[in-house]
Amino acid sequence: MPELRLNLVTREWVIIATERAKRPEDFKAAVPERPVPPPYLAECPFCPGNEGKTTEERFRISEGDAWKIRVVANKYPAVATVGEKRWIPDGFRRTVTGVGLHEVIIESPAHNMNPALMELGHVNDLIGVYRKRFVEAHRDPRVEHVIIFRNHGEGAGTSLEHPHSQIIGVPVVPVQFRDRVQAAMHFFDNTGECLFCHILNKEKGYGVRVVLETAHFLTFIPYAALSPFHTWVFPKRHSAVFSDIRDEEAADLAMNLKTVLSKFYWGLDNPDYNLVIRSSRPEDVKNEYCHWYLSVVPRVTKAAGFELGSGMFINTGLPEESARFLRDAPIA
Amino acid sequence: MPELRLNLVTREWVIIATERAKRPEDFKAAVPERPVPPPYLAECPFCPGNEGKTTEERFRISEGDAWKIRVVANKYPAVATVGEKRWIPDGFRRTVTGVGLHEVIIESPAHNMNPALMELGHVNDLIGVYRKRFVEAHRDPRVEHVIIFRNHGEGAGTSLEHPHSQIIGVPVVPVQFRDRVQAAMHFFDNTGECLFCHILNKEKGYGVRVVLETAHFLTFIPYAALSPFHTWVFPKRHSAVFSDIRDEEAADLAMNLKTVLSKFYWGLDNPDYNLVIRSSRPEDVKNEYCHWYLSVVPRVTKAAGFELGSGMFINTGLPEESARFLRDAPIA
Repeated sequence: MPELRLNLVTREWVIIATERAKRPEDFKAAVPERPVPPPYLAECPFCPGNEGKTTEERFRISEGDAWKIRVVANKYPAVATVGEKRWIPDGFRRTVTGVGLHEVIIESPAHNMNPALMELGHVNDLIGVYRKRFVEAHRDPRVEHVIIFRNHGEGAGTSLEHPHSQIIGVPVVPVQFRDRVQAAMHFFDNTGECLFCHILNKEKGYGVRVVLETAHFLTFIPYAALSPFHTWVFPKRHSAVFSDIRDEEAADLAMNLKTVLSKFYWGLDNPDYNLVIRSSRPEDVKNEYCHWYLSVVPRVTKAAGFELGSGMFINTGLPEESARFLRDAPIA
Repeated sequence: MPELRLNLVTREWVIIATERAKRPEDFKAAVPERPVPPPYLAECPFCPGNEGKTTEERFRISEGDAWKIRVVANKYPAVATVGEKRWIPDGFRRTVTGVGLHEVIIESPAHNMNPALMELGHVNDLIGVYRKRFVEAHRDPRVEHVIIFRNHGEGAGTSLEHPHSQIIGVPVVPVQFRDRVQAAMHFFDNTGECLFCHILNKEKGYGVRVVLETAHFLTFIPYAALSPFHTWVFPKRHSAVFSDIRDEEAADLAMNLKTVLSKFYWGLDNPDYNLVIRSSRPEDVKNEYCHWYLSVVPRVTKAAGFELGSGMFINTGLPEESARFLRDAPIA
């Protein structure tokens, strides 16, 4: 019989569709063969030599004369860099000027690179860049909330193949974030405990959904994963804010991230995925009930009308099976 | 400058990305050429003659000896028809047995049909079937919430081409629904007015986002539409429950639905779309602040990491432009 599982973090119900369930191996076949890209493409705006095709450079990590990671302003930003933040309330039409920050993090000079294939040190550098730009984005007084994300593959919504992440600072707080903060607050008020710390400790104990445990992080499939291989990377030390991460923790995060993405790459034939860091703003570093984390959602199934109409998801993979598969998956 | 708009119904912020905006005409090109299906396919389980390939028939509308619309149990149901509803609370793992109802509504014997091309009377019959099955689903004491939806095209998540809708009755209330009810309740407590009636009257007055107005319905693009051509069909008479619809209203809904889907079909080259009816349960028919409606979301753009990470959407079409385009689009 199918079962419904409640995700206490998102408050979403997920249908674990045992009747439709596939074996973890079967999700590989759902991924169309992806051609291996060339290491350099003359027409790619992110490839070395084409730096003039990007807009203003905001940051770079160099390696000798060359760059290793570059941060540039997005050429077609979702929010404008320049402009005043104004609320325009007008009856039911609530409008805010679309100002903030939208940057592209070009992760490597190599067109055919991605975090699953990078040297561990390079992933560590990337996390360092995430952190720097996250802090910088929050310095803008117009910015209320910052999202760091990575779209891998066309099916995950990216139009440019060259490996890159994005960071967007928006002038409002998304209701999704507000709702989750509130759920975490209620849990804290009920139990005196951080919901995320609680889940982390329980999952560590159960072990059955754990993919990787290291000194500072636990990588696992959530009990109510919204889709097959939906993975959470939780920091063990309670902290509401991503940029509060310490150097030894960042190195450990790099290890967890590279491992899970390598397992996707080699175990699931390089599926499309979305990666996102969910964090409170730096000012909230003392918050007792929020807990930052990283989430990766492979695009191995498709949301449809039911998901749109209910906000619920149908997961055709059993979380415990997904975890077992990823534990055993090769990393190279 | 881009602008952020708040959807008061969903409480979601949408970025209207003026810098990335396309003309309404440009979304046509995003749709790959779809081959016209044949009127009959020997291997299609929903084509006439293959009735034995479907599971238990629950309802049919006949036309002479043949059927016009058939309702069957879903062969691979998301929730099981038979079984007891049980809550299994166990620490942070909240589980409910996956029982309820999952039916497929086969909309026509013709494999190449769809509501955009149907006779108006046939669409009216389809709405009648939606209504009957909605009421029937709610008779099941295990069912808390019912979603009627239609996935059109592979990009919208359907695996079977033969025209069909689905109805799922789940044993829990989705948090998305709870949150929206609460937002509507707060609006009512603040203003003494139904939020949906308020929006409907304002939009009628503005006119700029209206696609079609008839005696009983207003079809319009929401002020904070989450994607280009995202369309709402609102009943003018306040009612929380879809099945409370009167016969003359149902006929009028058929007209609105056929018109908007025809405009998609002819004006946007038959895009993939998801359609959903959002309604309270029959018991809540006297509710003053909930208001049922129908929503259609064409799949002309792709959600990615930003949407996943924030719950916000980036709309590259200006709602007023989308509405103007649809007003002018042909219906045949």
